Amino acid sequence: MLHNQVYFDNASTTKLNVEVKNTYFKLLDEYFENSESLYSNGVKVHQLVEKSRVAVASILNVEAKEIIFTSCASEANSLAIKGIAFKYLNQNKHLITSKVEHSSVLNAFKQLEELFGFDVTYLDVDKSGCVDYNQLVNAVRPETILVSIMYVNNEVGSINQIDKIKKYIKKESNAFLHVDCVQAVGKIAVDLSDIDLASISAHKLNGLKGSAILMKRKHIKLVPLISGGQQELNTRGGTSNACANIVFAKTLRLALEQMHGSQLHCAKLKEYCVTKLSEIEGISINSSDDSVVNILNISCANLYSEVMMNALNQKNICISAQSTCHSKSNTGSYVLKCMGYSEKISKTCIRLSFCKDNTLDEIDYFINSLKEIIKNYGTNI
Amino acid sequence: MLHNQVYFDNASTTKLNVEVKNTYFKLLDEYFENSESLYSNGVKVHQLVEKSRVAVASILNVEAKEIIFTSCASEANSLAIKGIAFKYLNQNKHLITSKVEHSSVLNAFKQLEELFGFDVTYLDVDKSGCVDYNQLVNAVRPETILVSIMYVNNEVGSINQIDKIKKYIKKESNAFLHVDCVQAVGKIAVDLSDIDLASISAHKLNGLKGSAILMKRKHIKLVPLISGGQQELNTRGGTSNACANIVFAKTLRLALEQMHGSQLHCAKLKEYCVTKLSEIEGISINSSDDSVVNILNISCANLYSEVMMNALNQKNICISAQSTCHSKSNTGSYVLKCMGYSEKISKTCIRLSFCKDNTLDEIDYFINSLKEIIKNYGTNI
Repeated sequence: MLHNQVYFDNASTTKLNVEVKNTYFKLLDEYFENSESLYSNGVKVHQLVEKSRVAVASILNVEAKEIIFTSCASEANSLAIKGIAFKYLNQNKHLITSKVEHSSVLNAFKQLEELFGFDVTYLDVDKSGCVDYNQLVNAVRPETILVSIMYVNNEVGSINQIDKIKKYIKKESNAFLHVDCVQAVGKIAVDLSDIDLASISAHKLNGLKGSAILMKRKHIKLVPLISGGQQELNTRGGTSNACANIVFAKTLRLALEQMHGSQLHCAKLKEYCVTKLSEIEGISINSSDDSVVNILNISCANLYSEVMMNALNQKNICISAQSTCHSKSNTGSYVLKCMGYSEKISKTCIRLSFCKDNTLDEIDYFINSLKEIIKNYGTNI
Repeated sequence: MLHNQVYFDNASTTKLNVEVKNTYFKLLDEYFENSESLYSNGVKVHQLVEKSRVAVASILNVEAKEIIFTSCASEANSLAIKGIAFKYLNQNKHLITSKVEHSSVLNAFKQLEELFGFDVTYLDVDKSGCVDYNQLVNAVRPETILVSIMYVNNEVGSINQIDKIKKYIKKESNAFLHVDCVQAVGKIAVDLSDIDLASISAHKLNGLKGSAILMKRKHIKLVPLISGGQQELNTRGGTSNACANIVFAKTLRLALEQMHGSQLHCAKLKEYCVTKLSEIEGISINSSDDSVVNILNISCANLYSEVMMNALNQKNICISAQSTCHSKSNTGSYVLKCMGYSEKISKTCIRLSFCKDNTLDEIDYFINSLKEIIKNYGTNI
């Protein structure tokens, strides 16, 4: 008999929290007015959005005017990176990022390089997937305007030494520091002090799709990507997606309240899964020991990622290989390659990403399914 | 006794259609998976998004691969304009738009002019708010890469001669034509043939905020503003706001099905309102006779827009002055100034915008409230 859906793809997106959903539905029932309009109900909507902004800022220990609501973290990343770069277009042109960033970051930098003449340094990562601190230090120049480093890698869960990096950037450089916090917030303790710009997505935190924020320090001026009116401190045009923005605060609060319990639970699942996997021949564990507890990247020798994903799907198990934003390419994981893994490992990887609702029983079911698939497929490559 | 809320601000935003809302809620209950993921439920979500794309394309008589879902029309406008301009950054640099476009369009052009060295021609409008066709013809050069003209003006409802303009651009120029259709679709018959790019918003059509499309001909390559993965034909990164994108088709279909009845009704309301207004001394009708029937821009001599809006709000009547995206500026309407109206008219304007749910009784209540306000305030300027 087929198991109920086993969802091990929480790093891709998460189930909508029922409390968030109910509040959102209630808001949509109650308010439709434009939050920029000047009559009572419009003002009321505006106040609710601003209350959410204040709450989000307070949770993140920043100021309300440092929160910009956006439509997704890819927008937040693009706005941070291009917004800064365009601001300094005719001045300094050196930028730094790493080779294993999310596609929204990497492709923003590639565009700046290829179209707008910026000079981008792409940092290597070590075997565990972390940016080499010394290489970063050596890369920084007086004319470096932006350093963008992800907090947690989305494919393997490696945690960059952001505390060390931010201290260096703050003290020893003129650059702004942007941190893609999408896979970090709600998973590990994140301290935004000394970080200039940070992106956070709602739908990775059991919130809504189409909803994210960019934290941007108030002294930083960005060139808007979405031009428009007075919305979002003149940094992001467009009629406010008010009800989504209003429930962002609740989404973030609930995620952080549940973080500790959730991560204890995920740690147990991961440990159990790794133990069980060690009993299967030909499995390589690609995530380092000190990666986040909710992400486990593995490779099954002799089974291409896509074949494995499809086979697991037949068993009603949902997993990804690489980032979902790259799910339809066949080039293998660029992250694993940068970490020094072989072409074969990079093309046979799958990513399990857990949440508090996953169970040990689901791990058992996954392990048994995996064994069965490996047995059935034999040598695929 | 206070009247129930009289909502005459439908050009700013509209009430969410109950059918759209119910479908949306059902979708959010049912699907949370990432539409780019490869397991069954992800594929199902993807198929629903693609089905919506096909339906939207079919309604608009374009191809499915010519529809890009975005987070708002300001994003669609920005993507169309900057996406084209950046594509030709190192080639041709001449762009044309009009002086009365929406702020998302005007500010996109200003950015291209000030930061990226583009040469922008801003066309004048005539007394009725329409772009001067001959001036447009004279402005086009061999190196013009983009002409962006709104179909219907959001403040006064003037309808540009898009059919004439698009024929000229297509035949006699090398430029692409972008048409901001936000205030046109669902209000007048819109034929997208020979238009290269067109922006349409959901929330102006009783749909969701945070949802819009850019129609972009398949042969046109744009530089993405929101960098990212493979989503939206590689033109717009970010996890798909799938449920919102899925209900876009229903939103558009219902709006177009109701258009004829709705506009007959609005025409009646507008005519009645104009007749009643003619009985009040000091009222100027700023919208031309051939403007869309759902928008009526007027000025009340001696009462600043903001004072009037607040006074009407006390009566539970919701109206705007200018665009809502400009609601918090005090500079007077740039649209009315471009139409040749005096500073005084531009600073005393208010915009009524009707929908099928408005009633003659509401017009009566508005007229009586207006008379009372004018009487009470006396000479304010």
